[in-house]
Amino acid sequence: MPVIMAQLIDGVTIAAQIRAEVKDQVAEMKRTLGITPGLATVLVGEDPASATYVRSKHKACEEAGIASFGHVLPKDATQEQVAAVLTELAANPNVHGILMQLPLPKHLNEDPLLALIPQHKDVDGFHPSNLGLLGVKGKPPPFAACTPAGCIELLERTGVSIAGKRAVVLGRSTIVGLPVSLMLLTRDATVTMCHSRTVNLASVVREADIIIAAIGKPLFVTADMVKPGAVVIDVGINRIADPSRKSGSRLVGDVDFDAVAPIASAITPVPGGVGPMTIAMLLKNTLKAAKQSQK
Amino acid sequence: MPVIMAQLIDGVTIAAQIRAEVKDQVAEMKRTLGITPGLATVLVGEDPASATYVRSKHKACEEAGIASFGHVLPKDATQEQVAAVLTELAANPNVHGILMQLPLPKHLNEDPLLALIPQHKDVDGFHPSNLGLLGVKGKPPPFAACTPAGCIELLERTGVSIAGKRAVVLGRSTIVGLPVSLMLLTRDATVTMCHSRTVNLASVVREADIIIAAIGKPLFVTADMVKPGAVVIDVGINRIADPSRKSGSRLVGDVDFDAVAPIASAITPVPGGVGPMTIAMLLKNTLKAAKQSQK
Repeated sequence: MPVIMAQLIDGVTIAAQIRAEVKDQVAEMKRTLGITPGLATVLVGEDPASATYVRSKHKACEEAGIASFGHVLPKDATQEQVAAVLTELAANPNVHGILMQLPLPKHLNEDPLLALIPQHKDVDGFHPSNLGLLGVKGKPPPFAACTPAGCIELLERTGVSIAGKRAVVLGRSTIVGLPVSLMLLTRDATVTMCHSRTVNLASVVREADIIIAAIGKPLFVTADMVKPGAVVIDVGINRIADPSRKSGSRLVGDVDFDAVAPIASAITPVPGGVGPMTIAMLLKNTLKAAKQSQK
Repeated sequence: MPVIMAQLIDGVTIAAQIRAEVKDQVAEMKRTLGITPGLATVLVGEDPASATYVRSKHKACEEAGIASFGHVLPKDATQEQVAAVLTELAANPNVHGILMQLPLPKHLNEDPLLALIPQHKDVDGFHPSNLGLLGVKGKPPPFAACTPAGCIELLERTGVSIAGKRAVVLGRSTIVGLPVSLMLLTRDATVTMCHSRTVNLASVVREADIIIAAIGKPLFVTADMVKPGAVVIDVGINRIADPSRKSGSRLVGDVDFDAVAPIASAITPVPGGVGPMTIAMLLKNTLKAAKQSQK
């Protein structure tokens, strides 16, 4: 095992802090306003991974004192059936946040369904308007997407200063790479957005003081791509074969942790880094939605 | 005078081509569908620069065969009065595009007024959702903001390939820097977004194959910031003192043209580069709005 010199950014602990903060504020809200924040989830079909995600979201809500409303539709549900559920939830005053678990079954058209989630209940932050506003200084959107917001929280709660730093984001997806780029930009980083078509990727990433790896390729970021002292946030979750494990596989990030940790100044592990933050930020957004509903 | 080795990117000629193309398509639309594209402008107050911009937009519409509807409100118009005009235009089927000339007088609240322009008539491309979608590959917004779209047209019609190139954008405004960054990203450039808080700006800009200068500082980009062979798009329009001119002043861009032109492979002049493109793209967006209204 190599010597790990980098500070380990402990997503499990930081997420637990945030969930405890949310729990306190939810209790306060119930006491002072008599309102219980509520999150509705919509799951279509029986994808086991999706079902697991939704279950863990409900469990986290319960622990935080947030009401959760689970809606499960059969895998052959029609566009109209899903739309009807979303329309009802949009109108339901006890539901402050709506989360439609993606991906949907292939026969459904995602965008018009997402558009049925009103912006003030879009706790996933997936609305294009919420995305656009992430890049506008001084006009933050009502909700930032949970995983990118989790990356920013990890940096801020670790005491990493963002302003003036060079940040390189690998991956330009609308759920992670692009929104986290915009969030770094409004926090005054100089941001470079890289992707599969980037030429000389290693030398571009080597410029970074802060690396956000969200490219979905196991162990993609190697030691030669990292400037000594860089801070590394690894959003990837990839399962690779590992004959040494009883299961025959293990989870790894987009970063070659063992090789990069001795070079970085701080780094997130996988699992236990960004992963736990997503649900913590979802709870935070749901609380925020409930607060905003009172204005 | 230094030798200019760079190709001059002639915005006047390219804008004229686009306006001629729009004019042809407008005539075709009138002939085949009996529809005349219509642009409404809303001007509040008597700012001479704003009035001049609006006048030139009407003139350009007229030349292209586009109907234009000018609404001028007194400088002390109330929020409700401006809102009433926008609401009427939003419902008017002869108006395909609505442009509210900015900035508004200080007593008016810009965002809620902009929100009254329906997305399908937002030919300025200022809606946050239209901004967000610029960064999403495969889901272009109905309208891209005119000046950034003009920058992209200049590159594409000059034959500059964007994919895989390093682009550095100076300035992160929501009307130029940010949207042009997103448009370069979806065209597969590796994009770095710089701004007033960027550290070692010269060395960052020197990485660029394509420089977009939109920082609003006269002659800011100097020769030492430009890699030999870079393509330079200058969005700046600044008036500086020039005792050698009869007027005592002259217009310059954000780029020190005389010093940078010998190094760049292609460069836009100021005036006559990006400037004329904005109105050309506005006409193109208005035509697009009219076409989309038929679907």
